[in-house]
Amino acid sequence: MSTIADVAARAGVSKATASRALTGHGYVSAATRERVTAAASDLSYVAHSSAMSLATGRTLTVGAIVPSVGRWFFAEVLEGVQESLLEHGYDLALYSTRDDPALLDRLVEDVLPRRRFDGVIVAGIRPHAEGMQRLVASRRPLVSVGPRDEAISAVTIDDEAAARIATEHLIDLGHTEIAFLGGGSALEGPADGDALRVRSYGRTMRAAGLIDRIRVVTASPSMPGGYAAAADLLGDRRTRPTAIIGVCDEVAIGALIAARRLGIAVPTQLSIVGVDDHQHAEMFALTTIRQHPREQGRTAVDLLRRRIDDPGAAIVQTVAPSSLIVRNSTSVPQ
Amino acid sequence: MSTIADVAARAGVSKATASRALTGHGYVSAATRERVTAAASDLSYVAHSSAMSLATGRTLTVGAIVPSVGRWFFAEVLEGVQESLLEHGYDLALYSTRDDPALLDRLVEDVLPRRRFDGVIVAGIRPHAEGMQRLVASRRPLVSVGPRDEAISAVTIDDEAAARIATEHLIDLGHTEIAFLGGGSALEGPADGDALRVRSYGRTMRAAGLIDRIRVVTASPSMPGGYAAAADLLGDRRTRPTAIIGVCDEVAIGALIAARRLGIAVPTQLSIVGVDDHQHAEMFALTTIRQHPREQGRTAVDLLRRRIDDPGAAIVQTVAPSSLIVRNSTSVPQ
Repeated sequence: MSTIADVAARAGVSKATASRALTGHGYVSAATRERVTAAASDLSYVAHSSAMSLATGRTLTVGAIVPSVGRWFFAEVLEGVQESLLEHGYDLALYSTRDDPALLDRLVEDVLPRRRFDGVIVAGIRPHAEGMQRLVASRRPLVSVGPRDEAISAVTIDDEAAARIATEHLIDLGHTEIAFLGGGSALEGPADGDALRVRSYGRTMRAAGLIDRIRVVTASPSMPGGYAAAADLLGDRRTRPTAIIGVCDEVAIGALIAARRLGIAVPTQLSIVGVDDHQHAEMFALTTIRQHPREQGRTAVDLLRRRIDDPGAAIVQTVAPSSLIVRNSTSVPQ
Repeated sequence: MSTIADVAARAGVSKATASRALTGHGYVSAATRERVTAAASDLSYVAHSSAMSLATGRTLTVGAIVPSVGRWFFAEVLEGVQESLLEHGYDLALYSTRDDPALLDRLVEDVLPRRRFDGVIVAGIRPHAEGMQRLVASRRPLVSVGPRDEAISAVTIDDEAAARIATEHLIDLGHTEIAFLGGGSALEGPADGDALRVRSYGRTMRAAGLIDRIRVVTASPSMPGGYAAAADLLGDRRTRPTAIIGVCDEVAIGALIAARRLGIAVPTQLSIVGVDDHQHAEMFALTTIRQHPREQGRTAVDLLRRRIDDPGAAIVQTVAPSSLIVRNSTSVPQ
């Protein structure tokens, strides 16, 4: 098998130049690139990571850490990240923390320092989380999808605006008994993601003179989580709200299924709105705030590549677009 | 930063031995392992992939190819694969084909040959698929989750048994109008996965004297796919079956949602059974054939490691367990 050295010798350039020409990272003249490409083709050169790595100091691999592979948002982000990395010749090394803080700790303390990734993308993981500081401090190119921190580049939706728009949509329809499902415990934690949504719901209710109707119910961020929380909330006819905001579509869809099971008609007896535009939102005719996590994954790769190519590049915080999609799960209260 | 050579020198062993001791691959005596570990600790040695790779010829990275990250089955398999690889010090390089045969082709023809992975795991991808032959022929350690081929190790459930048990469950309850949702076009294709399930349904119906009641409806393997197909199938009261088998739980749950939307009571007016025991099966009280894709992912890693450690190891085809879980979506017909 020919090596990068063979290609370089045949093209009459240094190994580093040959590598730059073949990977597309860093400057080489068009003429040199052509000569190197021709040499590689003549020699049936197949790049392999170790040789590449020694010549350029790069591994062409990016690490990605997510709390879960299966939740819609993270699966979509991963698809976008992987798609974009592949287009740029990078591999994606995947780590799931399975929502286990101890495993995140181990990854950051023990696993990542032993890997020579060109950069790391984290999704849905708080930069303030225990253990994350070391990753932030390592000065390795790092991008967050979701939670923001001024020390690192990030792509996120405007969570405050999302929750405010959802709440105002229900208030505009005439609802006053509006409960928020999910992220309850986040009220005490750092202000990111779900916590921003809960707080924004609270502020919007207060601004509308509904401060004494604020009602936040804890739910784990999944369909079964929303189902269980809504089954409790909706069980007592006397205290039943006329509208529910789910912290995400999975919670909102769970609530919708619970309502149907209890014989509560959506939207006439109960309005429900979510955040995401999950792949199942349309099937459930769910009104929601649409975001595009796959695009966010692609944007994260753009931000990361900027920092890989220029470690001094500015920290960028991108706000991804989101918009209200009104379907058939919301209407004026009875 | 110290290198594997420094560790080897300090421990008085060769680089290859030091590497074997630190990675746990291949034999070293307990005493040597202890000496190497102590030397690594003294030198604050941090392994990095290039050095490791040059010393052992291994990259400690396994490639995984799936058709989709977000579908429950593949997300679970990936979690299991990643979890087990991490325990054994391997990284997982993730590729999704996004159900695009051209992308699978490109991965196999162009991307994988340039990566020095120690092995590859494919899930839900037919070994007979266009392009896969090259991967099978490359003699790289390779394991399939799902579709089987005699040339490679595989872990799979007994798809024929799964569909037979589901069909017999409905026949035993007294159903005769039993439709099969999903995998319709697979009748013409190679006999694996969904196609095995469809054919087994057909054989079981025939064995029960119900050959003229066989009814296979094509549906894409997702909740919206099952929803759309069932909405069509159930729309006409005169031709409505009394029972539906979903090729997977996502299709079955989609059918269940469609039935509720049409005002058809489950299970009294319509019985529904799926295959998977998906994370949402319990919430929908779905009767199903349970399988454990996360465990299948872990088993795939075991099979792969066997072939990495011994390229001459036998091809192993493991049949993962599955069992009927009766919940509240099936009953005797009205």
